[in-house]
Amino acid sequence: MQRPSFASRFGEPSEDELPGDIREIYEKNNAKIGFVPNVFRAYARRPEHFRAFMNYHDVLMKGEGGLSRAEREAIVVAVSSENRCQYCMTAHGAALRILGKDPILAEQIANNWRTADLSPRMRAILAFASRVNEPGFAATDEEIGALRAAGFGDDDIWDVAAIAAFFGFSNRMAGLMDMRPNPEFYSMGR
Amino acid sequence: MQRPSFASRFGEPSEDELPGDIREIYEKNNAKIGFVPNVFRAYARRPEHFRAFMNYHDVLMKGEGGLSRAEREAIVVAVSSENRCQYCMTAHGAALRILGKDPILAEQIANNWRTADLSPRMRAILAFASRVNEPGFAATDEEIGALRAAGFGDDDIWDVAAIAAFFGFSNRMAGLMDMRPNPEFYSMGR
Amino acid sequence: MQRPSFASRFGEPSEDELPGDIREIYEKNNAKIGFVPNVFRAYARRPEHFRAFMNYHDVLMKGEGGLSRAEREAIVVAVSSENRCQYCMTAHGAALRILGKDPILAEQIANNWRTADLSPRMRAILAFASRVNEPGFAATDEEIGALRAAGFGDDDIWDVAAIAAFFGFSNRMAGLMDMRPNPEFYSMGR
Amino acid sequence: MQRPSFASRFGEPSEDELPGDIREIYEKNNAKIGFVPNVFRAYARRPEHFRAFMNYHDVLMKGEGGLSRAEREAIVVAVSSENRCQYCMTAHGAALRILGKDPILAEQIANNWRTADLSPRMRAILAFASRVNEPGFAATDEEIGALRAAGFGDDDIWDVAAIAAFFGFSNRMAGLMDMRPNPEFYSMGR
Amino acid sequence: MQRPSFASRFGEPSEDELPGDIREIYEKNNAKIGFVPNVFRAYARRPEHFRAFMNYHDVLMKGEGGLSRAEREAIVVAVSSENRCQYCMTAHGAALRILGKDPILAEQIANNWRTADLSPRMRAILAFASRVNEPGFAATDEEIGALRAAGFGDDDIWDVAAIAAFFGFSNRMAGLMDMRPNPEFYSMGR
Amino acid sequence: MQRPSFASRFGEPSEDELPGDIREIYEKNNAKIGFVPNVFRAYARRPEHFRAFMNYHDVLMKGEGGLSRAEREAIVVAVSSENRCQYCMTAHGAALRILGKDPILAEQIANNWRTADLSPRMRAILAFASRVNEPGFAATDEEIGALRAAGFGDDDIWDVAAIAAFFGFSNRMAGLMDMRPNPEFYSMGR
Repeated sequence: MQRPSFASRFGEPSEDELPGDIREIYEKNNAKIGFVPNVFRAYARRPEHFRAFMNYHDVLMKGEGGLSRAEREAIVVAVSSENRCQYCMTAHGAALRILGKDPILAEQIANNWRTADLSPRMRAILAFASRVNEPGFAATDEEIGALRAAGFGDDDIWDVAAIAAFFGFSNRMAGLMDMRPNPEFYSMGR
Repeated sequence: MQRPSFASRFGEPSEDELPGDIREIYEKNNAKIGFVPNVFRAYARRPEHFRAFMNYHDVLMKGEGGLSRAEREAIVVAVSSENRCQYCMTAHGAALRILGKDPILAEQIANNWRTADLSPRMRAILAFASRVNEPGFAATDEEIGALRAAGFGDDDIWDVAAIAAFFGFSNRMAGLMDMRPNPEFYSMGR
Repeated sequence: MQRPSFASRFGEPSEDELPGDIREIYEKNNAKIGFVPNVFRAYARRPEHFRAFMNYHDVLMKGEGGLSRAEREAIVVAVSSENRCQYCMTAHGAALRILGKDPILAEQIANNWRTADLSPRMRAILAFASRVNEPGFAATDEEIGALRAAGFGDDDIWDVAAIAAFFGFSNRMAGLMDMRPNPEFYSMGR
Repeated sequence: MQRPSFASRFGEPSEDELPGDIREIYEKNNAKIGFVPNVFRAYARRPEHFRAFMNYHDVLMKGEGGLSRAEREAIVVAVSSENRCQYCMTAHGAALRILGKDPILAEQIANNWRTADLSPRMRAILAFASRVNEPGFAATDEEIGALRAAGFGDDDIWDVAAIAAFFGFSNRMAGLMDMRPNPEFYSMGR
Repeated sequence: MQRPSFASRFGEPSEDELPGDIREIYEKNNAKIGFVPNVFRAYARRPEHFRAFMNYHDVLMKGEGGLSRAEREAIVVAVSSENRCQYCMTAHGAALRILGKDPILAEQIANNWRTADLSPRMRAILAFASRVNEPGFAATDEEIGALRAAGFGDDDIWDVAAIAAFFGFSNRMAGLMDMRPNPEFYSMGR
Repeated sequence: MQRPSFASRFGEPSEDELPGDIREIYEKNNAKIGFVPNVFRAYARRPEHFRAFMNYHDVLMKGEGGLSRAEREAIVVAVSSENRCQYCMTAHGAALRILGKDPILAEQIANNWRTADLSPRMRAILAFASRVNEPGFAATDEEIGALRAAGFGDDDIWDVAAIAAFFGFSNRMAGLMDMRPNPEFYSMGR
C-alpha cells in the first residue's frame, strides 16, 4: 500500500514560496537526513507560527539543563504515546532510537513506559511527565518534594513538565492537521 | 484572609536581575495596568523560556486572522475552565470581561460554556476548542468539513485549535508552578 | 446581549396563580433582595415539589449544627462547580461572597477548590464533599475516622455529605429545567 | 454468616426516644411488613432530616402524575444499580418485584437496564433516568423534544428526572451511613 | 411478560444437528438441572469454539488449586457485575447461591462486592479480581507481594486473575451474542 | 542495557520437567524461529492451562473463517495497544509485520489504529474489535446490522469479537505475569 505523503490537511507551500529562513531549514534537513520532516512542511504554511513553534521547541529540546537529549526525547515519546499521536510517536521514536542508543527500550517506551525496563531516574522522569499530561494537572508540594529528594533541580523539574506539556500541545496540532509521518522515520535508528 | 502574592513555587528574580527586554515588559505592564501579571514574574526566572512563551502567545492572541481578540480570550477561558486552571481562569477571565464587553457572558463561559448564552458562531468556536482539549484529539474530515461549512477558513480553524492546545500547555505550566492570580484581576472589567 | 429571563423550560405560573404560602415567599424575596430567584419561579409550577424542596433545603442550609452558613455555601459552590451547574454556581456563588465575606476566596472555590487558598478545616470539608459527589460513593471507616480525628462530629460529617449530595440532586434539576441565573446574582457581594 | 443488623454507622435512637410522628411510622411499618426498614432507623437519629427526606420521598414516589408506582420504583432500581448502592438496590428491588409483578424483570433491571426486556416506554424512562444520573447533566432541547414526541408530558419528564436525581442523593446518603439492607428484603416478592 | 427464550442472536443448531460429544453435554444438563444453559446452546453453533471454551472453563472452575468452588463463582459474579453482563450475573449468581450456601451474600456480591459482608480472604480475592478487570492491568511487585503475605500461593494468584480475565472475555461474548439467561436460573438456590 | 530474559514472575519449568506434548511445541518453535516465545515458557508452569490456552488460541487464530491471518493479527495488535500490553504488542506486532507484509502499517496500528492508513474493511474490523474491548460491551442490533450490511457474515463477526475479547484476557494474563517480550521479536519482519 502506498503511504500518503502529504504533511497536513491544510496543505503546504511550494518550496519557491518559502521565506529565506525557512528555506534554509529545509536545506539543512535535506543535507542532514535526506528529507524534510512533515512537521516543518505543515507549519511552513504560516511562517510566524513556524518560527514561534520551532523556537520554543529548540529551547525545550536543545536548551541548557540537566536532562540529556535522550531523556528529553523519551518524555516526548511517552507523552505522545499516551496521547496516541501517530506523527510524534513515529518521528520522535526515531529520534529516541538514535539519541538513546537502545532501540528496544525506545520501542518499550512507545508501547507503555510503565512496563518498560527503565532506570529509576528515567522512571521518575516519565512518571512525572505522565502526571503533567493528565487533564487538570496541578502539582502538589509532596510531588515536587519527592522529585527534589530524588536529585532533580528546580529547572530539571520545570523542563520535564514543560516538555511534556508542550508536546501535549504539539500532539493536538498534529491531530488537527492529520499530519502523517514521513516514511523514512520508520526505519531510522533500528 | 491575606492572599499569597508569590508568582511561582520556583521563585522569581528580583527586578534588578532582569534582562533589559524583560524589564521593559514589566515597565509596560506597570504603566498600563498597574502591576506585573504573575505569569511574567514566574517565567522571568528563565529568560529564554520567557521569550519563547511570550512570543508564541502573542502570535496566537494578537496575530492576524479572522478571530476577534474577544473570541480568542473566550477560547482561553473555556479551555482553562475545563482544565480547572486557577490562574488562567482568573487572568483571562478579566481579559475576556474587558475585551468582550459582556462580563456576565464571560462568567458564564468560565462556569460552563455549554450552558452559556452563546451566539452560534461562538458556540462552534468553543465546541471545537473543547474537542481539541480532549486527550488523544485527532480531528476527522467530517469535523473540519462542518467548520468550513459554517464559514470558518482554514487559518481560523488552525487558530481555534492552536489557542486551545497552547493554553492546555500553559494551564499545565501554571499548575506546575502553583501560579497564583494577582488579586487585581478579580475586579477588573466588572 | 440581552440575557434570557425565563426560569425553566417548563414555564412558570403567573403570580396570581400562586398558592398563598408561595406568594408569601415571593414577597419576602422581593422585599429582601429585590427579585425572586429563578429556582423559586421554576419550582412554583408544582407547589408540592416547591414545598418539599425548600423545606429540605432549609433544614440543610439553615438547620442547627457545627457548620457555619458560609461553610455550607462553600460546599454548594464546590459541588456545583464539579457538576458544572450554571445556575447554582452563580446563585450560591453570590451567597458565598456575602456570607463568607471574602469574594476572592469565593471565586477561587468556584474555579477549583483544590487550588483555592483554604484553611485546613475548609479543605477537609470540601475534600469530603467532593468525595461524596463521586459516582458510587460509599464512605469507608478510614475516611470517617480521619474526619473525626480532625475534629468533626458525626452530625457535621452527615451535614457535609447531605449538603453535597442534595445539591448534586439540585444541580441535576437545574440542568433539567435549563434554569438560568437571575442577572442580579452576578454582581451581588462583589 | 450472621448479617450485621445495624442501620447506620452513626447509630440509631432507641424506640422510646422517638418523637411521636416517627414512632407512628415505625408502628405502621411493623404492622404492614413486619419490620422497620433501616432507612427509617438511620434517619431517625435526626428527626428534622427524617421528616424532610420522607416528605420529599413521598411527593416523588406517591404523588400525582403519569408514572405508575412500578415505573417509579424501576427508576430507583436502575439508578441505584448504576450508583452501586447496596441498600437501595435491595430495598427498592423488593418494592419493584412487588409493584411490578414481574420479579425476573426487576432482577434484570437491577443487573443492567440496558439489556433488560423492557417495553419501549420503560426503555425511554430508564434511558432518561440514566442520563440524569450522569455527572454534569444538562438536558438539551433535542432530548426533551424526543421525550415529548414519545408521549411524555412535561410533568412526567420532571418526575423521571426528579426521582432519578433524588435517589442519586439518597444513594450517597446510604453510602455515607454504611446503611445495610434488612435481611427481610431479599426474599420479598420472589 | 413472556421472557425471550433464544440463546444467541446468531441462532443455535437443532438438537439433531449436534455432534455426539455436545449432545452428551446437553443430555447431562437436562438430567442434572432440567435444562440446557443458553451458553451451551449459543456456542453449539460452532463446535470447535464450544469445545475450546468449555475445556478452558473447566480447567479454571473445576481444576486443582487452593480456591474453593464458591470462591471461584464469587469471582465470576463480581467481575460480571462490574462488566454488567446480564447472562453471567444470572447464571453464575445461581451457581454462587448454591455452592456458597449463602444466597444473601451472593446477592450482595452481585450488587457491589465492595459493600458486601465479606471475610478478609474473600475481600482480598475480589479486590484483586476487580484490579485484573481494569483496562490496562499490569500487576506490580507490591500487589503480588501483598497477596503472598496474605497467604495466597502463586497458583492461587494465577487462578484469581485467570478466572477474572477469562470471564471478562466470556462477558463480552455474551454481550456480542445478546445471550439471555434461561428463566430457571432466577429462582435456583434461593 | 541488558534486557531481562525471564518469561514470568511465577517462574518457568526447566526443559527436562516439561511434559512431552509441550516439549514438542518448544522444539517446533526452536526449529522454526530459533527461540521459544515467552508466552509458552510462562504457561508451561501449569500444563493444563498451557493446553487450554494454546488450543483456544489456535481455534481463534488459525481456525476456518472469512478473516485472513493478517486481519486476525491486526485485531490482536489493535486491542493489545488499547490495553497497553507490552508483550502482546511486541510479539503480535512481529507476527503482523510478517503476515501482513506491510511493516509500516503494522506500526501504525500499534500506535493508533484510528489514524492508521486502513482499508475500509480493516477499519470496520478494528473499530468493532475496539468496541468489544470496551468495558460493559453489549452489541446492539444496529451495530451487528451495520457489519452485516458491510459484507461480514455472522461467523466473521463472531471471530472479530472472539479474538478481541480473548486477547483482552491474554493481555491481562501477560500483565499479571510481568511477561517480557523475547528480544528477537523486536527485529522480526522489519
